[in-house]
Formats: sequence, structure tokens, C-alpha cells
Amino acid sequence: MKIKGIETRSIWTTTDGFVEVIDQTKLPHGFGTVRLTSMTAAARAISNMTVRGAPLIGATGAYGLALSLRADPSDEGLDKAHATLLATRPTAVNLRWSLDRVRDAVRNRPRDERADAAWKEAAAICDEDVETCRRIGQHGLSVLQGIAAKKSGPLNILTHCNAGWLACVDWGTALAPIYMAHDRGIKLHVWVDETRPRNQGASLTAFELGSHGVDHAVVADNAGGHLMQQGKVDVAIVGTDRVTRNGDVANKIGTYLKALAAKDNDVPFYVALPSSTIDWTLASGDMIPIEERSESEVTTMTGRLPDGKIATVEITPPGSRAANPGFDVTPARLVTGFITEEGVCAASEQGLRSLFPNEQRKR
Amino acid sequence: MKIKGIETRSIWTTTDGFVEVIDQTKLPHGFGTVRLTSMTAAARAISNMTVRGAPLIGATGAYGLALSLRADPSDEGLDKAHATLLATRPTAVNLRWSLDRVRDAVRNRPRDERADAAWKEAAAICDEDVETCRRIGQHGLSVLQGIAAKKSGPLNILTHCNAGWLACVDWGTALAPIYMAHDRGIKLHVWVDETRPRNQGASLTAFELGSHGVDHAVVADNAGGHLMQQGKVDVAIVGTDRVTRNGDVANKIGTYLKALAAKDNDVPFYVALPSSTIDWTLASGDMIPIEERSESEVTTMTGRLPDGKIATVEITPPGSRAANPGFDVTPARLVTGFITEEGVCAASEQGLRSLFPNEQRKR
Repeated sequence: MKIKGIETRSIWTTTDGFVEVIDQTKLPHGFGTVRLTSMTAAARAISNMTVRGAPLIGATGAYGLALSLRADPSDEGLDKAHATLLATRPTAVNLRWSLDRVRDAVRNRPRDERADAAWKEAAAICDEDVETCRRIGQHGLSVLQGIAAKKSGPLNILTHCNAGWLACVDWGTALAPIYMAHDRGIKLHVWVDETRPRNQGASLTAFELGSHGVDHAVVADNAGGHLMQQGKVDVAIVGTDRVTRNGDVANKIGTYLKALAAKDNDVPFYVALPSSTIDWTLASGDMIPIEERSESEVTTMTGRLPDGKIATVEITPPGSRAANPGFDVTPARLVTGFITEEGVCAASEQGLRSLFPNEQRKR
Repeated sequence: MKIKGIETRSIWTTTDGFVEVIDQTKLPHGFGTVRLTSMTAAARAISNMTVRGAPLIGATGAYGLALSLRADPSDEGLDKAHATLLATRPTAVNLRWSLDRVRDAVRNRPRDERADAAWKEAAAICDEDVETCRRIGQHGLSVLQGIAAKKSGPLNILTHCNAGWLACVDWGTALAPIYMAHDRGIKLHVWVDETRPRNQGASLTAFELGSHGVDHAVVADNAGGHLMQQGKVDVAIVGTDRVTRNGDVANKIGTYLKALAAKDNDVPFYVALPSSTIDWTLASGDMIPIEERSESEVTTMTGRLPDGKIATVEITPPGSRAANPGFDVTPARLVTGFITEEGVCAASEQGLRSLFPNEQRKR
């Protein structure tokens, strides 16, 4: 997607054979890139959250492994680099998948071919992610076109958290259809949920949309229901961290509240996802463990001071505790449909099966 | 209610004949009081939000008029002070009501009696507000006792925004039953919605509850639905800015989302209010105008830096717009009941009529 008119990915290779990423810790207050010239640099970029978002973490890890093999292409070096990179975010399923894939691609090759082969595999992982997101975008575009055709004036879309290209390599998931609609000249306006406590909406989604030139307004997470009551939301689209076999959706905390409001006001509520997000082993959403995150995310807020410096302020009284569940589960009954790389389906086991007949219950 | 073990009101008179209020602009990061020795000081306290909350603004205005009459008890002085005080917050219905009441009480008195009469009327306004809130608290206490009797472990209560004693003179509305239950030794825990964008929950409600010793945790506004799904909320209680004849409830933005989640999870959802909040002239909530507030409330956040200084940080990207509806309307169908100074009733015209048979359609 575009930043200041220039097509940008969240990760790219340089002409002199290294890797560069956007420094997401600086967003939205500043824009900078970080050059990754070694496995150590890649590992650091993951662990200090220079990069975030499951697909992007996986891509960064893959390139990190390739960079490592330039310095040490031995079996021992391969295993050690794999372990080091994996330890940066041990719970990121996508990271392990990427690292395993690169290792499998080089394992049976001569040592002097390993670095190049790993580099190609990392590039393939990136390109495949872009292609998956592009296809999600195309299927989502049809959904948006269908809704836009039934009304006059700009299409008003509400989204929660950040399911955009900054979390992937390009396009994003929930935001991909929005970018495609915008690029086709469909008039649209996006309501961006702030997404407390980590503000991924107010910072990352607003930055993405603004950089690409998409009209948007940030709103408090409290506002979405009222906007729907007022007829100011035509469709809601969100991403997801995990979808269970029956169509229940785990996503950023607060998604469930917006889905309830959408149902109460007859606003279509779509979830965009790559099929890798479907957990065929879980029968329903109540089996998904919900991460309880740090209290400090609730008791503080980070932003820029009038002089441009970044500061974190405490907003609760000294002594007040906080609770911080990171995700919630939206029951399938509240979801209008899933937008996947294979098409759009109902949020049900039957719906998922219709698009992925061979996937069911494997893993 | 208590601050550091000492019974405190939001406004009180001093032994040397002046008025003191809590400086609410400093909360929750610091505690200070402001002494009001003149009408001008009272007007400034209202306009710069040293005091806020409709009942407290009314009480401060009433004392401001009394202070003015000490300096100038003439008819001209009375009218001028009334106009000056009213101009501080022109849309506050309660302020006009209080000022009119004090003026009516002194108008036909000799000039040398006016200041004392006004002072007594201001004190009566305060005491009546306390009594109204105390009665709301008692009726709400019965509700809480009924719910507590049906479960083991602490009673988990969720509240949104600040409907506590800081907005009134003492007790508050939604928080009054909580204080009474706490004082009776009922084990309880309060989930405090942060209440973006102005954070009245994270700052004022958390401060009130913490100061009085009530166990609580601040949560992002996104979290309430998940907490209800998990069975961690036994009852929700909120305040209101206006209730229409049919029982629709205008309250701080986001209230509607919590009411939807309460309904979806069979959690009782109560609204606490003095009967002065009922607008008998409006048939339903869609007739209530919703204030669109400043974008900067959404794009910034105020808190304390590590060195204790108070700072405001910007959280959105430069160039991103924001929207900020201040209130939403919760349909009566989502409200379990109203807790008023006259008792508890259903959220319907019939319910309200049963408690206030003579009020209907007057005004």
C-alpha cells in the first residue's frame, strides 16, 4: 500500500542484498525504517516489536534465518539460528511455521547453496502472504460493491483494531477490501475504533488509511453502537486471531460488543481471514484460551507531547488495579460471513466446509 | 463518602463562613481543595470545571449567589450575579433551576436578610440532593442484596462513566447503592469502565471507589462484554443524563453497548436516577439531541508523567480526523429497571407512572 504516494510493503529486500522493515514502534508519531543485516538484527526486530503481526513476524524470521546462513551455513548454525529466532516470540504459531519451512527447504542442500535457497524461500513466504491477502481483498471487494450498490453517498465501514498491511506484508486482511474499493474509486469512509488498551486502531489503522489516502475518522471504542443506531455504518469488517470449526471468532477485545450492535441494527458484520487462521481442532469459541495481559496497558497511554517527544502517561489513580483480557469471542450467530482467500462463506461449520472441504479436522 | 478515612462531600461550608470544593481538575493525580470566597470565585470554579456534574454545579451556583448577596444585596446585584453564574454553563438545566430557586427565596426579603436566606437555601439544595441520592442508594441496596443472596463469593458490579458522589454532593446515583452495600459489609468488586474519551471511569470513579476502600478494577471499555460472557458480572448499574417517558436512557457514549451485552448474557442492567432526570415531555429516546464533542478529546489523552507532572499526549497520527458523539441512547427494552428516590420500577411509561403518578407530562 502507499505511504506518501510510494508503494510500500512492511518488509522488503535492498539492492545490496539485505532486508528492511518499517519501525512500527515509532508509528504513528514518526516514520522510520530499520535495516536488518544479520540474524541478530532480525531477532531483535521481532523481540522489540519493530515488527508485529503474525504474518510479518513469520516473514522477518524467515529472512533472519537466511541472513544467518550467509555467516554460518552449517547444520549446527541452522539449528541454533532457528532456535534463537523462535525464542523471540515463542507463542507465535506463524513464526514457527515460517522458520520450519525455511529449514526444510535448505536442509538437504549443499552448504554453499543454503543461504540463497533460504532467501528464495523467505521471498516466497512474503509473496504468498501478499497473494493470500490480495485474494481476500478481491472477495471482500465484491461484498463492499454489493452493499455500495444499494445506497447513495459514501460507503461507511467500521473496523476494530488493526488487520491491515502493517500486520502482514501488504494489503492486510480486513483492510484489503477497503484498499481495493478505494483504489477503484468507490467513495468510502472508515470509522476506526481506537481499540484500547493498545490503540492499534488510533495508531496503526489510522496511519495506514491516512497514508494511502483513505478517508477515515478515529472514534472511541464506545461510539460504534451509537453510529450504527444513527445509520452511519453500512458494514463492519474485522480480522481475527482464531476461528473455530463452528464459526466462532476470537479477535481483539471489544469485537463482540460491535458485533452485538451490528446485529441489533441490521448492519452486516464480516470477518476477513486467511484460512490458516481456522482452527479445525476446536469445536467452538469457548475452548479458546483468552490471554490476560499486563495491567499497565490499561493504566497508561503513550503518545507524543507538544514538543514531539514520545511519552507514557498514567491515567488511573495510584493504587487502582486494572484487568486486561486481550481478546473476546464473537459467537458465529452474530457474524454475517467470512471473507477468505477462497471466497465468502457463512460463519458456520457448513460454510467453512464449503470453501475448505479437505481441511476439516486435519492438524 | 470517605477520602483517607474522612467523611467528605464534594462541596461544604467552612467555619468562617465560606465555601470549599474539591478541585476535580486535579483528580485522580492529585487531591486539592479550592476556597470560594466570592461570586467570581464560584463562577470560575464552574466554568473551569473545578466542579462538574449537574447537581454539584447547581449547588456551587447557589452558594455563589449567596456570596454575591453579601457584597451587593440589591435587586440589580441579584440579577447581575444570577446572569453571571448562569452564563458559566448555559446548557446546564440544573444550574438554572438552582439559581432561580435561590433568587425566588430572597426576592421578597429585606436586603439585610438576603445573604443569610440565600445561604440557607443553598444549604437546603445541597441537603436535598444528598437525601435524594441516599434514597436512591437505599432502593438500590435492596436490588444488590437480592442479587447477592442468589450467589456465593463477591458481588461483581460493572459501571460506566462516573455517576458518583463527585458529580453530586454526596453518595452519587449509580454508585450510591455500591457504597451502601460496601458499608454494610457486603463483599463486592466493581468493574470500572475506563469511559473514553474523557476517562471519567478511570479517573473519577476509580478515585472515588479507591478512596472509600471499595475493591475495583479499571477495564478498557472494550472488556465488559467479555467479562459478562465469562460470568464475571452479576449486575450492571449506570447513571443517566436524561430518561424519556417511555424509559429510553441517554447516558455517556458506550452505555448502549454494555446494555446489549448484558441482555445477551442475562445480566441485570439497572439505571439509577433522581426523578428530576425524567423528561416527561419526550416520548422516546430518538428525540434526544446527541452532543457532538471536540475531536481533541479522542485524539489526546491526559495523565501524569513519571515525574508526577500532568501532560497531554496526542495518540492519533497527524492528519487523522476523529468523531466524538458524547452520549448514546439505550432503548428501554435493554434496561432491567430504574432505581429512583421513590423506589425501583420497570423501564417503561407504566413503570415510571407507577412511581410518579403526578409528574407525567408536566413541565
